Amino acid sequence: MIIVMRPDATAEQVDHVADLINEAGLKPHPIQGTDLYVVAVIGDDRLKDSSKFEQVPGVDRIMRVLSPYKMAAAETKPGERTQVRIGQGSGCVFGGTNIPVIAGPCSVEGEDKIIEIARLVKDAGAHALRGGAFKPRTNPYAFQGHGEDGLKMLAAAREETGLPIVTEVLTPADVELVAKYADCLQIGTRNAQNFKLLEAVGETDKPVLFKRGMSMTLDEYLQAADYILAAGNPNVILCERGIRTFENHTRNTLPLASVPELKRRSHLPIVVDPSHGTGHAYLVPDMSRAAVAAGCDGLAIETHQDPSHAMTDGAQSITPTVLKELMDSLARVAEAVDRTCLPLSTV
Amino acid sequence: MIIVMRPDATAEQVDHVADLINEAGLKPHPIQGTDLYVVAVIGDDRLKDSSKFEQVPGVDRIMRVLSPYKMAAAETKPGERTQVRIGQGSGCVFGGTNIPVIAGPCSVEGEDKIIEIARLVKDAGAHALRGGAFKPRTNPYAFQGHGEDGLKMLAAAREETGLPIVTEVLTPADVELVAKYADCLQIGTRNAQNFKLLEAVGETDKPVLFKRGMSMTLDEYLQAADYILAAGNPNVILCERGIRTFENHTRNTLPLASVPELKRRSHLPIVVDPSHGTGHAYLVPDMSRAAVAAGCDGLAIETHQDPSHAMTDGAQSITPTVLKELMDSLARVAEAVDRTCLPLSTV
Amino acid sequence: MIIVMRPDATAEQVDHVADLINEAGLKPHPIQGTDLYVVAVIGDDRLKDSSKFEQVPGVDRIMRVLSPYKMAAAETKPGERTQVRIGQGSGCVFGGTNIPVIAGPCSVEGEDKIIEIARLVKDAGAHALRGGAFKPRTNPYAFQGHGEDGLKMLAAAREETGLPIVTEVLTPADVELVAKYADCLQIGTRNAQNFKLLEAVGETDKPVLFKRGMSMTLDEYLQAADYILAAGNPNVILCERGIRTFENHTRNTLPLASVPELKRRSHLPIVVDPSHGTGHAYLVPDMSRAAVAAGCDGLAIETHQDPSHAMTDGAQSITPTVLKELMDSLARVAEAVDRTCLPLSTV
Amino acid sequence: MIIVMRPDATAEQVDHVADLINEAGLKPHPIQGTDLYVVAVIGDDRLKDSSKFEQVPGVDRIMRVLSPYKMAAAETKPGERTQVRIGQGSGCVFGGTNIPVIAGPCSVEGEDKIIEIARLVKDAGAHALRGGAFKPRTNPYAFQGHGEDGLKMLAAAREETGLPIVTEVLTPADVELVAKYADCLQIGTRNAQNFKLLEAVGETDKPVLFKRGMSMTLDEYLQAADYILAAGNPNVILCERGIRTFENHTRNTLPLASVPELKRRSHLPIVVDPSHGTGHAYLVPDMSRAAVAAGCDGLAIETHQDPSHAMTDGAQSITPTVLKELMDSLARVAEAVDRTCLPLSTV
Repeated sequence: MIIVMRPDATAEQVDHVADLINEAGLKPHPIQGTDLYVVAVIGDDRLKDSSKFEQVPGVDRIMRVLSPYKMAAAETKPGERTQVRIGQGSGCVFGGTNIPVIAGPCSVEGEDKIIEIARLVKDAGAHALRGGAFKPRTNPYAFQGHGEDGLKMLAAAREETGLPIVTEVLTPADVELVAKYADCLQIGTRNAQNFKLLEAVGETDKPVLFKRGMSMTLDEYLQAADYILAAGNPNVILCERGIRTFENHTRNTLPLASVPELKRRSHLPIVVDPSHGTGHAYLVPDMSRAAVAAGCDGLAIETHQDPSHAMTDGAQSITPTVLKELMDSLARVAEAVDRTCLPLSTV
Repeated sequence: MIIVMRPDATAEQVDHVADLINEAGLKPHPIQGTDLYVVAVIGDDRLKDSSKFEQVPGVDRIMRVLSPYKMAAAETKPGERTQVRIGQGSGCVFGGTNIPVIAGPCSVEGEDKIIEIARLVKDAGAHALRGGAFKPRTNPYAFQGHGEDGLKMLAAAREETGLPIVTEVLTPADVELVAKYADCLQIGTRNAQNFKLLEAVGETDKPVLFKRGMSMTLDEYLQAADYILAAGNPNVILCERGIRTFENHTRNTLPLASVPELKRRSHLPIVVDPSHGTGHAYLVPDMSRAAVAAGCDGLAIETHQDPSHAMTDGAQSITPTVLKELMDSLARVAEAVDRTCLPLSTV
Repeated sequence: MIIVMRPDATAEQVDHVADLINEAGLKPHPIQGTDLYVVAVIGDDRLKDSSKFEQVPGVDRIMRVLSPYKMAAAETKPGERTQVRIGQGSGCVFGGTNIPVIAGPCSVEGEDKIIEIARLVKDAGAHALRGGAFKPRTNPYAFQGHGEDGLKMLAAAREETGLPIVTEVLTPADVELVAKYADCLQIGTRNAQNFKLLEAVGETDKPVLFKRGMSMTLDEYLQAADYILAAGNPNVILCERGIRTFENHTRNTLPLASVPELKRRSHLPIVVDPSHGTGHAYLVPDMSRAAVAAGCDGLAIETHQDPSHAMTDGAQSITPTVLKELMDSLARVAEAVDRTCLPLSTV
Repeated sequence: MIIVMRPDATAEQVDHVADLINEAGLKPHPIQGTDLYVVAVIGDDRLKDSSKFEQVPGVDRIMRVLSPYKMAAAETKPGERTQVRIGQGSGCVFGGTNIPVIAGPCSVEGEDKIIEIARLVKDAGAHALRGGAFKPRTNPYAFQGHGEDGLKMLAAAREETGLPIVTEVLTPADVELVAKYADCLQIGTRNAQNFKLLEAVGETDKPVLFKRGMSMTLDEYLQAADYILAAGNPNVILCERGIRTFENHTRNTLPLASVPELKRRSHLPIVVDPSHGTGHAYLVPDMSRAAVAAGCDGLAIETHQDPSHAMTDGAQSITPTVLKELMDSLARVAEAVDRTCLPLSTV
């Protein structure tokens, strides 16, 4: 931590700051600059509320130096990247050379429909099936999902196709239930700082697809990932799904530079969701290709047999036909960046 | 809903859209403009995923007309404003002429300390005591609050001072426990779209201080308020606490225009939190005055005996001395806008 | 400047950074922390591109310590605030106890209309007349203003009413012309980093009403103000007019905390424009009151005889009747914060 | 335009709105919905200030239907994309199958250095040379560029290498001078709504590399492009360079979905600037690849012989060695999306 003193701070004020630093069990290191003093603070201040020094007389502001996350940090696994497998014995592994694709509808709408789409996305080359049984809806009067019935439908679709299933859990009380059926628990953007839920999924042995909060910085995101890791679950898959900005032509702004940046800061694999990241099916193929070129470790793509009749997220769902063409195209882009995007059957 | 067709849409495509509208149980109303067609859709489409029409051939985009919230809307109580009382028989009422102030520390740090600050803020003229027992911390390694012990300390402070207490609840499983002690349940910004938690507090009979999510539009905010209202709890107090923007001199940007806008759209009272809204104690007094002048129905102000030793949020906590001066000043501003900011003892 | 080294940086890399600092004429001050090294740099680095050190092997990132602006900084005039008078011998002074109001239409629409509105806003108690002769329109096909004819109409309105006039200048080539007629030159938000224009108005002796760019940080804003000051013109009036955020219920988000923050950092007076700051006439009175309560030194309010027939900005213009009521109300709020908002005639 | 009436609007108020629409030379089309009236307005309202209807009694809000831009719109050239060549007889063409790369330093630092870097980027495979002679610096005390001398140095570098040159112009008075030397005029992000400058470059016959404003929506961006096009210059190259958001790990957020969206809305070619789009050299290669995969028509990449000694933008400049490797990699990605990124010599 660096404490920047005001230009008019007195020597007594600098001494007082130094005393407080010592009192906090850290070591002060005052440096007189040309125009002002700074006090560098040595020692691990990650656990402390360093902001409080801002109120000490003569202090102008506080600058943090240490990253506030630990277990998610690249430094904890030098030269190594975490690989997360979804589905026992499955070839759906995130964080290796191959780039798996999670496809499926926003909501599980019925058993026949989820089995049908599971077959279609598998034929298209997808590696896992997504579908919401518990839906976090902005509008309280909108369809909230089929709940446990939806989970059973997903399990039936897995039975039929062999695809591992990814589905969202909304609240700690449902974690056990969802973990009973799912191969991977999804944490949605609105729950990205629902710390009790993060702890709850951290206590399971199921992989977690952890979506970035729509207004989270990367520092905040990796700290939140630490909640899951610190609870004992090492199988965290990060997921960039777009952030909230002033842009209004897309549902969110998809900031792909977070992909190489997260790979630089963390050992965790990083998936991109171009469906929520744009909100428009016509932008999904280009942004999927861009995500692969940017170095992502997987994709999550909303896919529906008949988007214009989808119960939720119709505007951003692509069809299985588009997905199939896209998979071929992704394989070519992956190859251009020395990766692969091979179908589940071949990995 | 207005469906805007592409300039090159064919008559058949317009007819097809009209058919789909009919099929959805709504009524299409096509209008040929100079450059393009629009199809106005009549009927309540609030429950529908209207976005799906975007994928129909010939459609350019969808524009919503109806507000997506209902129970929170001003239209449901024409000419009337909801008043919410915190604490049985207490004079701490939000939504009337008087403007109550909720004051207290970020965290409950110990029994003596919370009782001391309760006395100090009461003396300063505050109407309710805030303090966190369960803390949602961005950093998993930071102090997480004293839990039920903290709730008991708050109850002791209420016992001593008569001030009603406001404290945060983080997860549905804790709602019953927190409601046993608290006079008002706080929902924090990170849980503003934790819909299961909103439903859980909606099922209690305790008033809810519901903070705006830091990247929520007002439409989203009022829909989320509908979750609480629809669960049966009419006592919702809205709270503007700042939004996330590119600004970096404050912790959040405090957009006070949301105060008159929320009063225009909703019958619910609206409180402002200038502490989180700025992140700096030195900005709190000016922004508290501005909030009152903008028409707010209450304030929530972090107050600590010794901010430079606070366990959390030290930078943004004011002292009881500053609070006392501020209360006098707020009374003058309130009077200038035909409101009052009278101490609890006198209301 | 603080140079934060990577955790795995070698001693040689720290030495190399120190050499480069010395080479740049600054003084390195390496400090070994628990987890990493930082190198504090002593000496004025405001003129240097310090970002380049980021590319030196072993460096993680750079943190600036010194404020990048100089002449606009509060430190250059300790304990003193700049006062700017608009109009020779006029009582329209920004930065003193009284809070002047600049009112008038977005565009000068014709001579009779500008004289009429000038009389009306003067009667309502306003201190200066605004009106655009050169309009920066987002849309190239929209009305661009009456140019020099518009300036003459403004001069005629001043002649009739004695109100000093404020009008925008768009490009360096027009500065001389606009300065011939205007009492105060306005720089619009879209030109806030048009540095050649800032220099050009800095070379005149007319006061400048300098609007904040809609996506400018305060650091950038005060640096831009330094362009005008450094060119020799000390009469700069800052103007907060709202920033661009994700919010969509207002045209811009009006972040009033910039008012006390700018007063803390700079000696320049600060005006608020609640018209552009909200985009809706119905929000203007509440936000004007909030701006005064927040400590602003003036207001700029779009006012039109008949907003529903205005050529530009109809939605955000209030009527003279509303302005008159507002002025009475502002006088009360001003008094509550130990300021005044007295009419021109009485100051 | 759609005028949404308030739920409590009277029939008289609807009639009054209809009268005002007629008066404005447009055609009203009232539609009674279940909960409220809307009035659809037929006729070209692009030139009108439709916002003013918001102030008419009974009106809730206004929704625009028509795109406000014209000449930049895809509809004006159905099925056709504009190609822009930089440099007479040069193979540097934007908008075709090949994807040219503009490379070079932020600032022209001296004649020897610019010639050296020109040779190096040409050898690496770049298609054009960039370099600033007039620099728009946020800080008034920072290096402002070599002016006309810098232009001469660029011309010398073109002489030596045959590379066409791209350089920024800051103000209308300099347009003639810069156009005398440059093959392509760059408009920077801070001048993206400097309409007088847009008109001035629109009156030349030189291609314009027109960077998006850092807080511009795409609608605003294409309207600004219309300023150049409407002044008579059809050779506009759009350039996405990142937007301002809450993210702080990059200098800007690079929203690559604007690439396919701009190609959908406009016939103009679109270049991406990953250097300003990220602010960090280590993110440039990945984001360059992502931009090509997203479908961009060109790249602008800051390149410097010795970034840690660059006069400006050192942190985001890559070296010629990195550029050379990147060009090979871009060729592979381009091929994967059925484009090419062939060196200048071969096109």
